[in-house]
Amino acid sequence: MLRANLVRWSCVANLSGIELDPASDTPLYKQLAESIRGLVENGTVEAGERLPATRELAGQLGLNRTTISSAYAMLEESGLLEGHVGRGSFIARKFQAANTEKMDWDALLPPLGPLPHTAHGVEISFASSRPPEDAFPLAQFRRLSKGVIDGPDAAEILQLGSPHGYLPLRRFLLAQAADSGIARSGDDLIVTNGCQQALDLLAWLLVSDKQAVAVEDPVYHGLLRVFTRARAKIIPVPVDSAGIDVDLLREVVEEHRPRVLVVTPSFQNPTGVTLSLERRKAIVEIAQRRGIVLVENDIYSDLRYRGKALPTLKELDASGQTILLRSYSKVSFPGLRVGWVIAPRPVVARLAEIKQISDLHSDQLSQAILLRFAQSGELDRHLDRTRRAGLERLNAVTDACERFLPPGTKFTRPDGGMNLWIELPAPLTAARLLGSAQARGVDFLPGPYFSGGRAHERGLRISFGGLSPAQIKRGIQILGEAAAAELSASNNPADFEMAAALV
Amino acid sequence: MLRANLVRWSCVANLSGIELDPASDTPLYKQLAESIRGLVENGTVEAGERLPATRELAGQLGLNRTTISSAYAMLEESGLLEGHVGRGSFIARKFQAANTEKMDWDALLPPLGPLPHTAHGVEISFASSRPPEDAFPLAQFRRLSKGVIDGPDAAEILQLGSPHGYLPLRRFLLAQAADSGIARSGDDLIVTNGCQQALDLLAWLLVSDKQAVAVEDPVYHGLLRVFTRARAKIIPVPVDSAGIDVDLLREVVEEHRPRVLVVTPSFQNPTGVTLSLERRKAIVEIAQRRGIVLVENDIYSDLRYRGKALPTLKELDASGQTILLRSYSKVSFPGLRVGWVIAPRPVVARLAEIKQISDLHSDQLSQAILLRFAQSGELDRHLDRTRRAGLERLNAVTDACERFLPPGTKFTRPDGGMNLWIELPAPLTAARLLGSAQARGVDFLPGPYFSGGRAHERGLRISFGGLSPAQIKRGIQILGEAAAAELSASNNPADFEMAAALV
Repeated sequence: MLRANLVRWSCVANLSGIELDPASDTPLYKQLAESIRGLVENGTVEAGERLPATRELAGQLGLNRTTISSAYAMLEESGLLEGHVGRGSFIARKFQAANTEKMDWDALLPPLGPLPHTAHGVEISFASSRPPEDAFPLAQFRRLSKGVIDGPDAAEILQLGSPHGYLPLRRFLLAQAADSGIARSGDDLIVTNGCQQALDLLAWLLVSDKQAVAVEDPVYHGLLRVFTRARAKIIPVPVDSAGIDVDLLREVVEEHRPRVLVVTPSFQNPTGVTLSLERRKAIVEIAQRRGIVLVENDIYSDLRYRGKALPTLKELDASGQTILLRSYSKVSFPGLRVGWVIAPRPVVARLAEIKQISDLHSDQLSQAILLRFAQSGELDRHLDRTRRAGLERLNAVTDACERFLPPGTKFTRPDGGMNLWIELPAPLTAARLLGSAQARGVDFLPGPYFSGGRAHERGLRISFGGLSPAQIKRGIQILGEAAAAELSASNNPADFEMAAALV
Repeated sequence: MLRANLVRWSCVANLSGIELDPASDTPLYKQLAESIRGLVENGTVEAGERLPATRELAGQLGLNRTTISSAYAMLEESGLLEGHVGRGSFIARKFQAANTEKMDWDALLPPLGPLPHTAHGVEISFASSRPPEDAFPLAQFRRLSKGVIDGPDAAEILQLGSPHGYLPLRRFLLAQAADSGIARSGDDLIVTNGCQQALDLLAWLLVSDKQAVAVEDPVYHGLLRVFTRARAKIIPVPVDSAGIDVDLLREVVEEHRPRVLVVTPSFQNPTGVTLSLERRKAIVEIAQRRGIVLVENDIYSDLRYRGKALPTLKELDASGQTILLRSYSKVSFPGLRVGWVIAPRPVVARLAEIKQISDLHSDQLSQAILLRFAQSGELDRHLDRTRRAGLERLNAVTDACERFLPPGTKFTRPDGGMNLWIELPAPLTAARLLGSAQARGVDFLPGPYFSGGRAHERGLRISFGGLSPAQIKRGIQILGEAAAAELSASNNPADFEMAAALV
């Protein structure tokens, strides 16, 4: 039995029929993955067969080895391939065949949205805004989690919970917010699956068809999508080095009378900039005068690496029209999905209704573990370490930007958070630079991905939060080399025309 | 310091100013809770003061002690009160005062939906469809969770994940589904926060304004709300003892041409009935002929206590237009929110997009723990025990219904699951019975709560899954007594008129 199994697994798939088209718009790794899938679906290659080693197939097809790995990774992700360390990649067990007269889902459903232009197999990725996992306080997490798991509340945690959240966590967070002057009399709190869900629930609650919602521009893509899916009319307000431009905001408010203004006051994603105290006060005053609901997306403020903390809009607003969003994701473990909303009681009551429709309630085990993490003081100790390391990263990224990027490049100077924004000098565009950078093993998200209104063709986001200072330096250096190469290529007028046509 | 603290905490709040109106529509416990909140907000009662013991206040106000506990529970839930076992209930710390010129949220926001008529302080609740927490395999959960927490993948689990779900779980579930003939070539899988979120994502994907969606009637409230919030036109199809009525379904299909049909084929919530094999085949045939998308909500089928398992619609449908929803919530720990969708790849790709907008991805720790639970065989062992205990519950509830409910009462005979449906004889209504039952310490959800179209005024759901056979027997006996009392009261014509006017 074992022997038969071994024999079966050792058969190498015959991929000799594969032909790829280098001139196609579809990347080669996708073409390759689709070809392999085709061979499986038409029965040429069978379940249990081993695919050739990446080096071998790269040689056969005359392709880069990274292209092969990317195709294999894509197939593995989709479940068609199973990877076994040291033994290779195998076609997964056979699925029951579907009828040939299948439903044409692609015709029935809306088209898929554009994917961010991330590449497989990059060496240094500035594309994802997340903490470094090698800095996770694993020992503390393990100890505290076991306390929760062995504790007397385990059965209660495993039972169906409340749409408002796990009561002990909810109480702790609300008391903490009351102590620090953030929660006022009449406020309540609901736990959400990170801030993303909080934004989604709020969009549902606050916005009806075509109602105007003012957002920062550039802005976090996930924030924009939440409000566009709620059918809001998006009104972009430009951000400069001190956050949202208040004079432009006043104009926007007079012209569009937005019902909601969504602001990330500290270390905004994607720019990293922080709203000055003066502007915070001005925004609260505008909102109060015009009856605008302020949604304050405050997920980065604990990641301040230098300078003095500023009050939240919620603290500055005694009239109770600010809704504050916070989260443990950016400051502890993003894989545990726990954020929360602090708002007047009528708002929270309605959010709880929508939360129940969306997914009943948030996972309780993670809520209980994060509560323990916060109550034990381990979260504060972790934050202290994170801030020290964050300052080193911040210095590394700004130093490298000054040193390696071409003359005329502008970039923001954040005091915290995970992101920094670069504006390239003409005729460079982020899309051109991205192609060149990915070929050199460096990835980032280009400006148009964060467009709230303006195209941001020369803009790009550098997420430095998950990388070491050495990786940051090396990555920005490569970006600088790619930019120099693109600039030199664009001095060739024919090439420059081509580049312009690409935009 | 300790002394001062003790003195402060020992002060008993003066609630002598409270006046309640027994004739009001607002229940007394809510009136009491709001009065206490008023005394805190106007400063009569201060943070740290202890409320009178429930027995004492009940005596003072001439109320039932349960009313007082319910009011305290409500205030505790909202954070205004802190309970300390053995010491009493205390007003929570003071919050910073809000401006008196506050935003009028209740005027700005849509009204809150009606709440289910659940009561506080009931002895036996048939209201919630959930497993009994004293049957949770806690020792196994603790052992396996620690394995995950101490394991080499802990850092990866804690890091930002994929909208598709935790890859090892996704692979495991898809391989399992392929092995059992449920997943076909071309299918993929996405993990969701239980089935509720799966329904929500699907409603988003499949339904646009006013598109017709056929649902069972009566139907699970949370399913209905998901599709109404997606602005679907709901087409109810009556359910009888063998599930959805296929002849009526054919008529509905010809008349309304629904785009989607949502079915819970096994142990449907709220009726507990199971679609016969013949009807399953007929439904698949209708869907294939008319190009209708089948959403198969299959969360209870593992809870079969007697009889032979039936194939899923997904297995019967080779054309790939069935979308299967499953979940670990009902069969293991509802507090860990892990469900999944198996569907053709184009559907799953789009669900992943919507999932990312909704909340990025599901909590990874629970996904990893439930994977371990399933892989270790502990889930199967737990299911065996659950099914044995479930059969006892099922026998207890049907025996008690036969024995204690008044003549003319009809009820379903489920072969599994957690719910049974009762139809009361005229002139009884579920609303009248509920008031009478709650006064006797028994709670349930009345029929109108599950209305997909018809009012179901005489219907009610009995969720027996979380109770012991003895509790079930006692609860149904009390229901029978309450029904008898209501029937005898309704022989008084004046009373009967009043009851009719209430409907």
